[in-house]
Amino acid sequence: MWYDIEPLRELIEALAKLPGTGPKSARRIAFHLLGQPREEVEKFCATVMSSFDRTQRCSVCGNISDAPVCPICSDESRDRSTVCVVQNPQDMIAIERTGEYDGTYHILGGLIDPTSGVKPSGLRVDELLERVKKGGIGEIIVATPATIEGEITASFLANLLKKYGVKTTRPAYGIPMGGEIEFTDEVTIGRAFGGRGPVL
Amino acid sequence: MWYDIEPLRELIEALAKLPGTGPKSARRIAFHLLGQPREEVEKFCATVMSSFDRTQRCSVCGNISDAPVCPICSDESRDRSTVCVVQNPQDMIAIERTGEYDGTYHILGGLIDPTSGVKPSGLRVDELLERVKKGGIGEIIVATPATIEGEITASFLANLLKKYGVKTTRPAYGIPMGGEIEFTDEVTIGRAFGGRGPVL
Repeated sequence: MWYDIEPLRELIEALAKLPGTGPKSARRIAFHLLGQPREEVEKFCATVMSSFDRTQRCSVCGNISDAPVCPICSDESRDRSTVCVVQNPQDMIAIERTGEYDGTYHILGGLIDPTSGVKPSGLRVDELLERVKKGGIGEIIVATPATIEGEITASFLANLLKKYGVKTTRPAYGIPMGGEIEFTDEVTIGRAFGGRGPVL
Repeated sequence: MWYDIEPLRELIEALAKLPGTGPKSARRIAFHLLGQPREEVEKFCATVMSSFDRTQRCSVCGNISDAPVCPICSDESRDRSTVCVVQNPQDMIAIERTGEYDGTYHILGGLIDPTSGVKPSGLRVDELLERVKKGGIGEIIVATPATIEGEITASFLANLLKKYGVKTTRPAYGIPMGGEIEFTDEVTIGRAFGGRGPVL
């Protein structure tokens, strides 16, 4: 710190804990907040608390919701026989944005990660099994990321769901649209070749 | 919005007003906050308010401070005959980081901007004149940015300070260190040629 005063340092530390906020952007936000009139800062904090208090977890999928059941789970037009498992609500939004998926979701709340000690019991796996046991689910798409933790989680869920006779699928992983073969890494190309299919 | 619930939208809107936070990073922070335990969110808001309440404006330079006079203005080892005028505390920190400047600062609180109606009266110009009138200041370095508003502000201050017999300077503007001539824009090259000096 080149200008080290305690309240500023504390505020920067609190802001730097937010996702995507490095020390530089935390400092920028801190100076912005400290330069505002007090009412504005109070209003900001009031919005944070009030938004928090008006949300809850959807009792079906675990998503952030303003009602006991979220808008997607309570939408009659959606296909409830297909459930897409995602690690967090942000991934759900990325899929919603495509406008191509009309099934429902299940928010896991993380990924299995042996190195940092995240076990299946720390995720919403039991809640997923409860939904499966109730019946009516034909396919579960495990849309966890293409990382080690994402793959471990997908394998674990596929194994677990085998005995319930539910089809478990995973989105295709391969060369992204617009991607040049030359600049695609070897793991992705390998995966794309392994998962090749007929010309569409 | 692809998942439009009111408390989430309100929180994203409030976060997107912070500097450097676009709609995407605001959404990411919002989901993070809404996914935390209530105590954590309360603690975050408490830190924001407590940091705000423990800071004030330095009565000399106008910087964010934890005391009536900021650490730089109260530092006896600094050269008080040289004052560097900056638009905000962030620019002051960028200059402090060089470790090359041992004078003091004056925070303007913005730049003169006729298009958005910011007049000198809306900035800490009178406070600068007060400091000059008290005597003891030999040089004022106007370190406003190399933008139209920054240049207008610098000209205005240089004109205003002329009658007080204070030397007004401006940092050199030119090719940045490590910069290739080929990739430097024509305005910067022009300015660098106009301000050329002996080989050091």
